[in-house]
Amino acid sequence: MAFTFQINQDVVFQHDKKLIDQADQYRPEIYHQTILPRHVAELVEDDTKLGGYRCKESSLTIAELNKKGLKRDDTIILDFDDHYVGNFSMKIEATGSPMDAPLYFRIRFAEVPSELVQDSKDYDGWLSKSWIQEEFIHIDVLPTEITLPRRYSFRYVEIKVIDTSPKWQAVFSEFKVVARSSAQCQQLKPIHIEDPVLQKIYDVSVKTLQDCMQDVFEDGPKRDRRLWLGDLRLQALANYMTFDQHTLVKRCLYLFAAMTTQEGKISANLFIQPEYMPDDTFLFDYSLFFISTLYDYIKHHDDSELLQDLYPIAKKQMMLAQEKVNEEGRIILEESYPVFVDWSNEFNKDTSAQAIMIYVTRQMIELASMYQDEDITIYQTLLDNMINYSRDNLFDKEACLFISGDNKEYNISSQAWMVLANVLTKEENKKVMQKTIQKLFPVKGIATPYMYHHIVEALFVAGLQEEAIQLMKAYWGKMISLGADTFWEAFDPDEPDYSPYGNPIMSSFCHAWSCTPAYLIRKYIENR
Amino acid sequence: MAFTFQINQDVVFQHDKKLIDQADQYRPEIYHQTILPRHVAELVEDDTKLGGYRCKESSLTIAELNKKGLKRDDTIILDFDDHYVGNFSMKIEATGSPMDAPLYFRIRFAEVPSELVQDSKDYDGWLSKSWIQEEFIHIDVLPTEITLPRRYSFRYVEIKVIDTSPKWQAVFSEFKVVARSSAQCQQLKPIHIEDPVLQKIYDVSVKTLQDCMQDVFEDGPKRDRRLWLGDLRLQALANYMTFDQHTLVKRCLYLFAAMTTQEGKISANLFIQPEYMPDDTFLFDYSLFFISTLYDYIKHHDDSELLQDLYPIAKKQMMLAQEKVNEEGRIILEESYPVFVDWSNEFNKDTSAQAIMIYVTRQMIELASMYQDEDITIYQTLLDNMINYSRDNLFDKEACLFISGDNKEYNISSQAWMVLANVLTKEENKKVMQKTIQKLFPVKGIATPYMYHHIVEALFVAGLQEEAIQLMKAYWGKMISLGADTFWEAFDPDEPDYSPYGNPIMSSFCHAWSCTPAYLIRKYIENR
Repeated sequence: MAFTFQINQDVVFQHDKKLIDQADQYRPEIYHQTILPRHVAELVEDDTKLGGYRCKESSLTIAELNKKGLKRDDTIILDFDDHYVGNFSMKIEATGSPMDAPLYFRIRFAEVPSELVQDSKDYDGWLSKSWIQEEFIHIDVLPTEITLPRRYSFRYVEIKVIDTSPKWQAVFSEFKVVARSSAQCQQLKPIHIEDPVLQKIYDVSVKTLQDCMQDVFEDGPKRDRRLWLGDLRLQALANYMTFDQHTLVKRCLYLFAAMTTQEGKISANLFIQPEYMPDDTFLFDYSLFFISTLYDYIKHHDDSELLQDLYPIAKKQMMLAQEKVNEEGRIILEESYPVFVDWSNEFNKDTSAQAIMIYVTRQMIELASMYQDEDITIYQTLLDNMINYSRDNLFDKEACLFISGDNKEYNISSQAWMVLANVLTKEENKKVMQKTIQKLFPVKGIATPYMYHHIVEALFVAGLQEEAIQLMKAYWGKMISLGADTFWEAFDPDEPDYSPYGNPIMSSFCHAWSCTPAYLIRKYIENR
Repeated sequence: MAFTFQINQDVVFQHDKKLIDQADQYRPEIYHQTILPRHVAELVEDDTKLGGYRCKESSLTIAELNKKGLKRDDTIILDFDDHYVGNFSMKIEATGSPMDAPLYFRIRFAEVPSELVQDSKDYDGWLSKSWIQEEFIHIDVLPTEITLPRRYSFRYVEIKVIDTSPKWQAVFSEFKVVARSSAQCQQLKPIHIEDPVLQKIYDVSVKTLQDCMQDVFEDGPKRDRRLWLGDLRLQALANYMTFDQHTLVKRCLYLFAAMTTQEGKISANLFIQPEYMPDDTFLFDYSLFFISTLYDYIKHHDDSELLQDLYPIAKKQMMLAQEKVNEEGRIILEESYPVFVDWSNEFNKDTSAQAIMIYVTRQMIELASMYQDEDITIYQTLLDNMINYSRDNLFDKEACLFISGDNKEYNISSQAWMVLANVLTKEENKKVMQKTIQKLFPVKGIATPYMYHHIVEALFVAGLQEEAIQLMKAYWGKMISLGADTFWEAFDPDEPDYSPYGNPIMSSFCHAWSCTPAYLIRKYIENR
């Protein structure tokens, strides 16, 4: 997540000290791993790779850099051979005459080679330029060993000497990254998948998740390094199937629960530094996914204390959402509290919102049952109403597809979410997805792994396993063939070089919401 | 100094531990002074100031910055009201929605307003770009207080926000510089000068010297921050007349003495960090000025230990120089060991070199006498030879000017140095300088305060006090009228915006060799 933009500075938040203390109790240990670069790289054009570039191994070796003096405009690229999140160190010395001027160099960190082709000056989008992983550094006295104080997310490091002086050159060596993650790799559940493409998709999903697991589940370690509720829900699902570090999920749930608005609404995302702080951005579906994430947690790890602590907060989200449902069982949203569903605003989201509400209400009913909440009957009535409204007014029986909005638009999202919400029978679900394939495929204008995830899961739920696998390969598999070490925040297979920000240096190429194949493969393929 | 460029990497230096220990014994205490900015400034065009710009006081106050959120491309300029050398600190906070992206800003330090008009990208000279006082800084978490780790030389600080995000702004406040100098202002000898222009020239000279007095006498605190022997000689002279911190001179003399080449030659300059190291640059006159600086020291502060320790090194410089004098008493230099005299290479320097050798030999004879060196007779013979050669072959009696080189060129430098060398009678000296004024003035093509110093001192020595004062005012006084807070490394009154590096961001506007009016005024004006 990242693309949503709201300013609501007047909102007042409350901080529940008790819940924050609980969150802090589950603060994860960060594991460090020292990684050396595999080789020196050269950027070469390659039409088959993202952005038309790849990095090939240079004839110059890492060991030879030890003896290579670099002068004004000389550049080296280091390839760490995989994606890492962490702190970069190196040694710098001077060679030649005495160092009669400071060293000035630029250092850039790139997740994909095509970032290195860009010039940061050319980026002028609305998203902050401050995300560009580029530093300009003066060193007055050599030799020195430096560890850059900031954390970066990268596979490639490019060092360009802006200047030494005509009398001496700079020598760079002893490069390393101390990679950081709160994921414990030894806890990873072993898996064997016959299909090598699926195996690779699984592995890259796990690496993506691993690199987003830090002090909380981050959406992207390069940008915006934040805890988003919608992303958390998917990360948690992938996590149960892989590292299964459930206390990190618990920590994040407590954090969201601890900082609601005065009326009890949960923010779409939280900041962790300099102190816990909810963002002033609110999304209807993201607030509801608090219920969903709590439900998934309890399903995987029975935890009555967590339920006791957080059920009241979940219930509050339900109450706030209920207000948006009219007597007919139809959900009507306001502009000030929009549903996200997907970045694209090219399709009508009314039916998707309706389906998400149904999906979550089912989970709420199960939580209410465990909590022995008498209001369970209210939720059951609400659910029936919403389902009936959907069947009667949103399902086009003839087309066997759901319509959305005043223009009765058919779109993929509505079908996927209505299948996930289980509004129809098993056979009907299958038919809806078959019709979706027939009438609405191939997927067009969708650039988020987030939406693709829901489409693929709907295909699995509808019993269309082959089609689900085919779409997963066509989407996540294509990222791999384009060179992905981790899965990307945004990807449109029809337009591989598309960046929502107009420039790959702003894109996040390791993004939490794209890690779900690990979950999908474990849940729907491995055990069948 | 700075402009000289040599590479002699094969030279082997010796390090005399005993002399280095002596130098370290005189390592100065650095005094710190906390300075707050006087006001917020705005850059305005002004043809009467250097580079066509000055900074005027903004209607915005420093106090108001406390409440002013700055967003992408917003800029503020702080005016510290005088030149300082030191470390800059400030507080940075975020205002608006939560900080959803790092802060990225550029900070520039400028000695003169016209530096702020430049874009560092436009500089492409041979002198290292690394000297440009410009940093690009990311801050991940606000609020924070930062102290930039590097030392800068400046009066103006410009902060430009490259980006925050559309949701929040950055607030900068609590600016301060901790200014550094080893000069003890309370030791400054009081002076009263009737002429307000001379008083101002004196004050700016003292400030220039003060800001160049650090761990050693630096040539320029912005660039190149190094101990040059030719500059040291002039700084020491100004120092005896002002702060009189003679131990700092002593320290510098010991350092030069401690690190000669294997044949005993003294380098033109030394590096102090990361360890004491002589540069591989050698200048005939600079090596000789070791004798001159030692002589001046002993004249001002009798010190038999210093004489005992350093006389052998001084004698070595004399021996190496003697080899360049032929039987006729004529000095003949090689390209590999050139005479500096001035940056300009537009005039012939043979006669200047001859005069400098005579000037220094006189001082050597006095040192030899104090040291009771029997070789004093050799130096006396040498001196007589050189004087006779100069009178017989270099002095054009008809023109009453010295000639230089095969083309028998008249140039100002030859006259000034021959007068300083005292080759002629008092009356002749006066006539030479009168002729110089008549035939060779106004000074053309000379851009260094270093050369102007020698011309002005020659006028004083020749008894032309009014003319000396007039030239001092026309040169140093003009820098003041153009806006100087400290005197500049280079200045050509005919071309005020001239920079030897093609861009003012590379120029040093506080440069040691320009501080000599403090000495000239004290020696030739105050007491007469």
